[in-house]
Amino acid sequence: MKKNKKVNAAILIIGNEILSGRTQDTNTSTIALWLNSIGVKVQEVRVIPDIEKTIIETVNILRKLNDYVFTTGGIGPTHDDITAESISKLFELDYEVHEEAFKILETYYKPGEFNEGRQKMVWMPKGAKLILNPTSGAPGFSVQNVFCLPGVPSILKSMLGGLKNEIAGGKPILSHTISLRTVESEIAKSLTNVQDSNKDVEIGSYPFFQAGKLGVSIVIRSEDQSKIDSCNKQILEFVNEKRIKVVNK
Amino acid sequence: MKKNKKVNAAILIIGNEILSGRTQDTNTSTIALWLNSIGVKVQEVRVIPDIEKTIIETVNILRKLNDYVFTTGGIGPTHDDITAESISKLFELDYEVHEEAFKILETYYKPGEFNEGRQKMVWMPKGAKLILNPTSGAPGFSVQNVFCLPGVPSILKSMLGGLKNEIAGGKPILSHTISLRTVESEIAKSLTNVQDSNKDVEIGSYPFFQAGKLGVSIVIRSEDQSKIDSCNKQILEFVNEKRIKVVNK
Repeated sequence: MKKNKKVNAAILIIGNEILSGRTQDTNTSTIALWLNSIGVKVQEVRVIPDIEKTIIETVNILRKLNDYVFTTGGIGPTHDDITAESISKLFELDYEVHEEAFKILETYYKPGEFNEGRQKMVWMPKGAKLILNPTSGAPGFSVQNVFCLPGVPSILKSMLGGLKNEIAGGKPILSHTISLRTVESEIAKSLTNVQDSNKDVEIGSYPFFQAGKLGVSIVIRSEDQSKIDSCNKQILEFVNEKRIKVVNK
Repeated sequence: MKKNKKVNAAILIIGNEILSGRTQDTNTSTIALWLNSIGVKVQEVRVIPDIEKTIIETVNILRKLNDYVFTTGGIGPTHDDITAESISKLFELDYEVHEEAFKILETYYKPGEFNEGRQKMVWMPKGAKLILNPTSGAPGFSVQNVFCLPGVPSILKSMLGGLKNEIAGGKPILSHTISLRTVESEIAKSLTNVQDSNKDVEIGSYPFFQAGKLGVSIVIRSEDQSKIDSCNKQILEFVNEKRIKVVNK
């Protein structure tokens, strides 16, 4: 893939526990930050329940719309872990014991500990490529452009590094943040002018509360550092004119 | 709406800052927990960028698939706040000054403070119903089954209470959690048996790490307390048999 091509991805969070509100998803942010650093832009995130039909249909839509799809959740040993079987059905691949994964877990566990429950975790789509797991043994896997990761945040995090060579990113997406002691309405018009004259740069405005005080963070994002620098300069011009304080956040 | 009807909703998080990983979404969990408590089940969550076409298309899909759609983000005073205008276009309604919202903010701000930036926040789809904001004045709004809320978590949270009478929920979704000092693979088979004999109850299994120890939380969800109690009993039976410790989490 050419280094100047735009590369995009979708993240699919599979899990009733996120939809019920019981668990706060943090994997989106982990994956998105990592993808940004290797030049892949997340276009869309979806959270769906542990329902086979929904998983199959959603992955099928997302894999066609995006260069990469990353799923999280549903690859553990229990009855509600149905991602691997769903992906097998989607790609019309046999759902079977993955020899390499079996060997990894056979070595990972003490003799006698590699029980039936754990053996479920080596059932995968035939020919799936493993994503190694330095934290807890059980690997994730990929089929074509679909990468299936676990839902436990610390384990997922430990597996991303090993994926780097599998993902052909574009130019890294650079960003610069300016935090101001002001409110959005004070800078809205001036910021609109900067955005209007820099249409290919993404400029976001995000209010924050910190130590009891209001502020706004302006985030400038582009693949081109000189465009970020130029916007930064234009923003600081009106910030100085308005005598707004720049703060650390 | 009948009290025994299943009522579902989708949540749509609008904002580049979530997709870039810069900001961790917490609104999904806030809205989902609140909806659960009034008998509405979240079926799907999507996160999309601040792009008008994407907002219009996605809301249009979700409003047809769900009883309710809740959007967050994009209703502030800056150039990247385009939710109200997008919703106007979707429903083919004029995008105009909402008289009632104007009066609210005129009273809310000190004389001279209700500037052009802030006035953007009273532009809404014609005929939109306001969602009052006890925290910071600027209201959200709804059109048909689409409810548009702000992205700032503390403000969003303060607005949900006022929405209760607008949402006709079904039976509240009840849940019970059993936390165990074990690993998933130890209980996977027994838990599958309980799920198989209680197909209309949602049983989830979630590993956790707490104070350096591994554990598993089993979450039983149903609208029927007696079904939860029955599953709970069946689970505790195998837990006792296996001499697994029940812990507080």
